[in-house]
Amino acid sequence: MPETLTLYTAKICPYAQRVEIALAESKLPFTRYEIDLGNKPEWFAPKVNAASKVPAVAYGGPSVPPENPSPESQKIAESLVLLEFIADISGGALLPKDPVLRARVRLFIDVVSNKLVPAFTGFAFRGEPVDNFWTAIEAIQPLILGKYAVGDEFTIADAALIPFVARGKVALKYDIGKFEVGAGLKAYDVLQTDPRFEKFRRYIADVEARDSFKSTFDEQFLKERYTVRFARN
Amino acid sequence: MPETLTLYTAKICPYAQRVEIALAESKLPFTRYEIDLGNKPEWFAPKVNAASKVPAVAYGGPSVPPENPSPESQKIAESLVLLEFIADISGGALLPKDPVLRARVRLFIDVVSNKLVPAFTGFAFRGEPVDNFWTAIEAIQPLILGKYAVGDEFTIADAALIPFVARGKVALKYDIGKFEVGAGLKAYDVLQTDPRFEKFRRYIADVEARDSFKSTFDEQFLKERYTVRFARN
Ligand SMILES: N[C@@H](CCC(=O)N[C@@H](CS)C(=O)NCC(=O)O)C(=O)O
Ligand SMILES: N[C@@H](CCC(=O)N[C@@H](CS)C(=O)NCC(=O)O)C(=O)O
Repeated sequence: MPETLTLYTAKICPYAQRVEIALAESKLPFTRYEIDLGNKPEWFAPKVNAASKVPAVAYGGPSVPPENPSPESQKIAESLVLLEFIADISGGALLPKDPVLRARVRLFIDVVSNKLVPAFTGFAFRGEPVDNFWTAIEAIQPLILGKYAVGDEFTIADAALIPFVARGKVALKYDIGKFEVGAGLKAYDVLQTDPRFEKFRRYIADVEARDSFKSTFDEQFLKERYTVRFARN
Repeated sequence: MPETLTLYTAKICPYAQRVEIALAESKLPFTRYEIDLGNKPEWFAPKVNAASKVPAVAYGGPSVPPENPSPESQKIAESLVLLEFIADISGGALLPKDPVLRARVRLFIDVVSNKLVPAFTGFAFRGEPVDNFWTAIEAIQPLILGKYAVGDEFTIADAALIPFVARGKVALKYDIGKFEVGAGLKAYDVLQTDPRFEKFRRYIADVEARDSFKSTFDEQFLKERYTVRFARN
């Protein structure tokens, strides 16, 4: 019997979607618990994650309702730590065996963290130029070694990247974000048609086609939430 | 026969020392090659690491002189990626088997990266208050689970942390850094005597006592280099 696993998550959150994707790929049984980030339950920080963020996992210990986490379970947070953790407990899926390929997975994630994530949050939230998104994609594109990031098997590298690209596409396509009216749409057109991003587009299409992505992504929900959150004054 | 492994490194560099420590602990054979960061060989960026940084590793392929890296070897950079890589190729040393403890190692490293490294570079290079160092230590201290970061075995968590603490101590002890004259010495005294850091001090002493640290750390060399580099105008 596998250990009990409860994931505290939120549909809006790209970090949390990383972990949802990895769990979907792993086929491990788990309990999904949605945290309303606008109105967090008062037991969440003291009993699950002192940093009061999703994603967070309670692992092991007795089977309990998610609202009443057991002190006996292990509490683990941070999306990248959780991706490695899920790879570790799912025995072989999600990370290659070859140490060099494992290093390629981690280098890919490093570029996602240091280029793609800041580029997305920059243009969506902070009014920074969409161009940083192109720079990030150009840094990532040569690292794509196969159908997926490091070859023909899906890994945690793909799970780490896709939530940010998918959310970036929603912001641009519906022209919602801290940029001038029309700039999102124009950038979306570049992203979808510019020949220099062809390899990236093919890669993204392959990742988005997986059940693990489709079952954890709700475009309409994001569109509505972004409309409220990034509303221009 | 293990694969050939060449480490491109520099004594001054805390990121590189992480990898030197992990390699020393692993007992894997490797070739150490010092890069003069003030005068980098012109083959380094094109043939080893396009980012032109140490640490970097050439792994596998034919046995060649370090100055003439083979196109057949795998080139891997980024200290944290290399720590995981060395754990992967050293079969069981440096990372526990238990997935929860592995997650604790990675959470510890996350706090080192996000709190301790910026605190050290901040007060040594950018004139930020030494207090951030205390905040970082206070964040790390409760995470120390045993003699070492996650228990009684040395792991990559310890290798990730110690180069920054050891360099911080040199800067403070010799009062060299972007702080007012005397402030380093005063902070050094706090670090060495304040009761609230006792657990941290014991932990640091245990890590510094290991051969892997002692054989990769040269206090006098750092002192001299810091005197030049952080000289007040
Ligand atoms: N570094 C964290 C970031 C997680 C994060 O920032 N989560 C956000 C939602 S996307 C959160 O829970 N924020 C707390 C809040 O909104 O109150 C990770 O990688 O897991
Ligand atoms: N993120 C890198 C940082 C490595 C780094 O910054 N190394 C410095 C020396 S400490 C370097 O090689 N800088 C290039 C230079 O000095 O020209 C890692 O973790 O390995």
